[in-house]
Formats: sequence, C-alpha cells, structure tokens
Amino acid sequence: MDFQKELDYRATEVDRILVRELPKVEGYQANLFDAMRYSVLVGGKRLRPILMQETFKLFGGHSEAIEPFMAAIEMIHSYSLVHDDLPAMDNDMLRRGNPTTHAKYGEGLGILAGDALLNYGFEVALRAFDRAPEDKDRIIKSLKILADKAGAFGMVGGQVVDIEESRQNGISLNRLNFLYSKKTAALIEAAMMIGAVLAGADDQHVKTIEEVAHKIGLAFQIRDDVLDAIGDEETLGKEVGQDARNQKVTYLSFVGLDRAKEEVNRLSDEGITTLLSLPYENRFLTKLLEFLVHREK
Amino acid sequence: MDFQKELDYRATEVDRILVRELPKVEGYQANLFDAMRYSVLVGGKRLRPILMQETFKLFGGHSEAIEPFMAAIEMIHSYSLVHDDLPAMDNDMLRRGNPTTHAKYGEGLGILAGDALLNYGFEVALRAFDRAPEDKDRIIKSLKILADKAGAFGMVGGQVVDIEESRQNGISLNRLNFLYSKKTAALIEAAMMIGAVLAGADDQHVKTIEEVAHKIGLAFQIRDDVLDAIGDEETLGKEVGQDARNQKVTYLSFVGLDRAKEEVNRLSDEGITTLLSLPYENRFLTKLLEFLVHREK
Repeated sequence: MDFQKELDYRATEVDRILVRELPKVEGYQANLFDAMRYSVLVGGKRLRPILMQETFKLFGGHSEAIEPFMAAIEMIHSYSLVHDDLPAMDNDMLRRGNPTTHAKYGEGLGILAGDALLNYGFEVALRAFDRAPEDKDRIIKSLKILADKAGAFGMVGGQVVDIEESRQNGISLNRLNFLYSKKTAALIEAAMMIGAVLAGADDQHVKTIEEVAHKIGLAFQIRDDVLDAIGDEETLGKEVGQDARNQKVTYLSFVGLDRAKEEVNRLSDEGITTLLSLPYENRFLTKLLEFLVHREK
Repeated sequence: MDFQKELDYRATEVDRILVRELPKVEGYQANLFDAMRYSVLVGGKRLRPILMQETFKLFGGHSEAIEPFMAAIEMIHSYSLVHDDLPAMDNDMLRRGNPTTHAKYGEGLGILAGDALLNYGFEVALRAFDRAPEDKDRIIKSLKILADKAGAFGMVGGQVVDIEESRQNGISLNRLNFLYSKKTAALIEAAMMIGAVLAGADDQHVKTIEEVAHKIGLAFQIRDDVLDAIGDEETLGKEVGQDARNQKVTYLSFVGLDRAKEEVNRLSDEGITTLLSLPYENRFLTKLLEFLVHREK
C-alpha cells in the first residue's frame, strides 16, 4: 500500500472513533450535539490523532486508553478552529469548502459548540480510566499534558498573540516563534507525548518526543507560510498570497522565502534525526513527519 | 459571628486560593493572563467553592485535593459568565457595576479568556493529584463529575436552550425546567457532589447530595425570577422587571408569582429536609442553603 492510502486508511479509522465517541443528536440540546458533530466530522486530516497513535505504536503501546485520547485531541483541535472562525476572530464563513460552524448554526451556537467541544475533550479523555483502569498513572500524566498544551500556556496563549499581531504593528521574530510554538506546535507536542506516555515510554523518551514534535510543528507552520507565498506556482486551484494581501507578518517577512524553505528543512531534518536516535522504529511515523513538512497543500 | 460575616470570611478565603492558583501576568500572553485574572477576581459571591467546601466539611473531609477543585469550579463558573456576556449572547457591557471582560479587553480576547479559563479549570483541578496523591480515585471521580456537569450534558446544554428560547416563541415548562436544571443547578450539583466525593462519602450519600443540590439550584433560579418581578417593592436600588420588558419566558410566565414563591419554598424545604436526613451535620451549610433561596438580592 502506498503512503497516501495508508494515511487515508488511518484517517478513516479515526473518523470511526470520533463518530462513536461524539454525543448522539437527541434531547433538548439536540442542536448543540448536532453542531458539535458537524464541527468535528465536516472534515480534517486527523493528523493529531494519527500522530498520537503512531507514536504510541513506536513505543510498542498496548492500551485501551489510546482511543479516548485520540478522540479528545481532535475535539480540542476542532473547538479551536470553530472559535478561530468566529466573526470577532478570523471571521471565516468557509473552511475546506464547507460553511463554518457559526455560519451554519449562528454565532451564539458557534461559541457554545466550541465551549462544549473543549469540555467534551476532557469528558472523553476521562473515559480512558474506565477503558484501561490499570493505566491510571499514565492517564493522569496524559491528562496533564493535554490540559497544559491546549490552554493559556499552550494553544490559547498562541492564539492570543496571533490576534494581537493583527492589531499591532511590529511583531518581533521572538514573538512570532512563540506564536508558532504555541498556536501550532503545542497540540502536536501533546499528541505525540501522550502517545508515548500511554505506551509507557520513560520521561527521557517523552522529552525527546516533545522535542521532535516541537520542531515538526514549527516546520509545519513555516511550510504553511511558504505554501501561501509559492502555492501559485507549485499547486493548482488553491487561493494563495493571502498573507501578503492581508499584510500579515509571517516567517517570510523576517527571513524571506529561500531561508524560510531552508528553515523548514533544517527543523524537519533535526526532528527526524532525533526521532531516529530512539531505540525504536516506526517507518510510517517517519514518513508522516516528512510528509507534514514537505506537503504541497 | 453572624451568618453574613461568616459567609464573607469564607469568600475571602476562596479569593486567597484563586489569587494563588491563577497564572501570573507575564510573558508574551500577559494580556490573556490579565484578562483571566480580571474575569475571576472582579467579583462574585464564591458560592460554588463555598458550597463545595461546606459539603466536604459535612462529611468530615480532610484532603489537600479540595482547594484545587474549589478554584477549578469558580474558574469554570467565571468562564461561563464571560461567554454569556459576549455580544452574540446576552451582550452585556456591565456585570456587578464593572465592565465585562469583552467590554474591557475586546471581543476576541473575551472569547479566548473564556476558553482559557475553562481549560484552566481542568489544569487546576489536575493539580489535586500532586497535592493529594493518596486520593487518586476520589480525584478521578471528581474530575468526571466536573466535566460532566460543566459540558454539553450540563451547563453548556442549558445555555444552548437559553439562547434558543430567546429566538423561539413558546418554550414549554418541561423545557424551562431542563434549562434551569442544566444552566443553573448542574454546577451547584457538581460543587456539592465533589465536596462529598473528596471527603470520602459513599455513592449513596453522593446521590443524596446531588438531589439536595438539584433542588436548591432550581429554587435559586426561580428565586431569581421572583426577585426580578418583585424586587421593586422589596429591595432598593436594583433594576428589576427586566424579564417582563424583554418578554423573557420565566417560571412566573407559567405559574404566576404566588405559586413561584411556593415552589421556591417547597424545593428549598425538600432539599434541606433531605440534607438533614443524613447522619452528618453542618449548620453553616444548612443556613447557606436557606440563604441562597430566600435572599433578597
């Protein structure tokens, strides 16, 4: 099977888990459940749950605790998109060609569906205690990672700097690095670290995985900037040049296109070299990390 | 010491815990931390943490796990107010005489401060594992209660029905009961149940406490409706009659003022009688429940 087919297969498996773990559409709050399901199931590459599962496999994981956490991280990722799209934030009506949650359900329900999905991430992750009672300590450690990386010290912290950037002139490169580290890399770190923790990796290995995920996460975000600038030439049918039109400060504003490309390669190479330094191997994971930072769309 | 002084003293103790557990205002996301602290510390009666602590005392609790959960439930309550006040929701610029979070920090940061506080509620609650490692199972049970009562099956579920009510004509009494049960009672149930669980109460007693909290929570909300209607005569300097002016359907719309007052008394009496049926006693808690449902403001 080729890589893309394997990836699609894994995404389908994640979808199956998500469909199962999401609430049924019933009861007085049926519209909320409907908006939650829509927000999560409307699409997505499911990269975070897949990264979690593949890191789990890397360390030879066997635990029923993994699936609740795979669902949880995708719900938290989904909530962040729902709130990002709100009128007071990026004000997007479309995401991957479909109406955003607030465009479809109204702004009030957009806010509440996001809130409910963030909360539900923790509800679902807590199910791991019932599925794998013998893994209590690993689950506790994973919950702490999830909460830390998703919140004010992680993703939300990055998001705040992002909305401030658009209001202020003159963001520093240090501040931009913080933004990318938190807004994009933090949840990727959580995904891979939790995969390692639930598989029983020791603290040193979890730290190594955090470093790998951090570099891949940064490379992933800088690749995004690069694609926005050169997508016109390299891909077909994608709206590009938005950052320039919106006068958005990106990595390219500081170092230019060529050095940004070099930085993607450097971060990606370092991340993968670190991964390969571990006494375990998962070829699909290595390919996935390469794919993430060299993707054309 | 009289009751009001004792209550004030306890609220001050809760404030001390909150100040300690909230993030310091520093780093790139300093504005977020500032908005989080403002949202929580600007005011509030701290009823939920106090109810938690008093229920904990009722069952003779001794555990360092209680303070993280007291802080967590107040952060989650605060986030719900921050999001309730947003333009797409109730659109309130003032709360207790102070600017609401979005009025002070802008709508984007209002949304993100709410997100961060919800997430931070779980981060803080998870600290209980470090403070009281011997109480692991009670902490896990408490986390599940917190997540369940705050989310789509609890508070957020009620909030959705509330915003739908204002858009639709003709809410049924059953639907209104659901709304009050979830939007108001659910977090009060969580507060008291977690106090019981962390003190080591058995499942039957936790169930009894849930029933008490449910009735007090409903009575509390109906008392709110009553006060809005009769505050003019009974209290001074409070804006009343808002429900009528906004054509908001409340409990009074269905049963009128006198029967609503009776219902408050009935629910409150039943709740307190159930509480007193337990083989434990906490007079302050009993007084507090009476105070909540008979308050004049």
